[in-house]
Amino acid sequence: MEKREIEVISSQALGERTGIPSAQVRKDLSYYGEFGRRGVGYEVSILRRHLQKILGLERDWPMVIVGAGNLGRALVNYQGFLRHGLEVRAVFDSDPRVIGTYIHNLRVEGPEIMEQRIQEEEAHLGIIAVPAEAAQEVAERLITAGIRGIWNFSPEHLRVPQEVILRNEDLSVGLMALIYHLNYSIDRGD
Amino acid sequence: MEKREIEVISSQALGERTGIPSAQVRKDLSYYGEFGRRGVGYEVSILRRHLQKILGLERDWPMVIVGAGNLGRALVNYQGFLRHGLEVRAVFDSDPRVIGTYIHNLRVEGPEIMEQRIQEEEAHLGIIAVPAEAAQEVAERLITAGIRGIWNFSPEHLRVPQEVILRNEDLSVGLMALIYHLNYSIDRGD
Repeated sequence: MEKREIEVISSQALGERTGIPSAQVRKDLSYYGEFGRRGVGYEVSILRRHLQKILGLERDWPMVIVGAGNLGRALVNYQGFLRHGLEVRAVFDSDPRVIGTYIHNLRVEGPEIMEQRIQEEEAHLGIIAVPAEAAQEVAERLITAGIRGIWNFSPEHLRVPQEVILRNEDLSVGLMALIYHLNYSIDRGD
Repeated sequence: MEKREIEVISSQALGERTGIPSAQVRKDLSYYGEFGRRGVGYEVSILRRHLQKILGLERDWPMVIVGAGNLGRALVNYQGFLRHGLEVRAVFDSDPRVIGTYIHNLRVEGPEIMEQRIQEEEAHLGIIAVPAEAAQEVAERLITAGIRGIWNFSPEHLRVPQEVILRNEDLSVGLMALIYHLNYSIDRGD
């Protein structure tokens, strides 16, 4: 909206764009403070700053990725991360044929220096993009090295200490949702 | 649960596993029919069959992927799809150096035969994994060829006819959620 030079947006318009009822938009945002104006709406630049703060994006979140297969490589290059100021600082793989190769301008490093590099980069965020059978060991090494949040793309059900934030990403979920709607659309004969 | 030989599950247990209140679990499932038993729960094998039917998974959903970059390649190999019986039948790329190479046992094909191959495979589902600037044109060709549901991994905001089901996948959203929780966890000093 800033790019399109929209200066103020109402909770109704926010609701329409997000598919969330406008009353819920107001309620949810007011939980974090009073930064809208009754009968006017939200100043876009102020709302943006607040959302960044709410999400924790005013901090730096250096990330490391373990696994330089197709998914790991795709995540290193993922444009959406950079847009939010999020940067992958190191990528590791155990395959000697992959170590030393470059993804964009990031050199793939060996697993033996993982702990050292995580500490150097002061990374708290680790992305696991290794096969299921390697994921638990990788998670444990990441946590020992100081990683506090894990984004797990492997299908492995990881066991992590309670203080570690774990998010499992199952891409099938998005596909299921799409198929559900598509199936009904075809049945209706659209 | 079937694998673990659990035969019956209560809505409470389903609620705990999914993070959804058990009353909501019962309400949501009952919307599709009465396949639970009051005071007992759901027979796992029956529930599974119903869920597959609800999601539309008893049908075949042959898929095609456009874009054989890292993300496209990762999606071709994505184990989670096969687990649900979903199969990528064709993958296309415009890069002559990529056409003819193999991802697993799928040969990357050129864009000129996209329409023909979609019709041969009777594919209704198309995955867009091309750069933003190519995405709209790809979407239009897919739709003309008979694709009814598009899973868009590009950051491009696609314009599609109303009868086409479009799902945009932004991986940053998952990362934002993780950072939000991590940020609060660090502030609390966990």
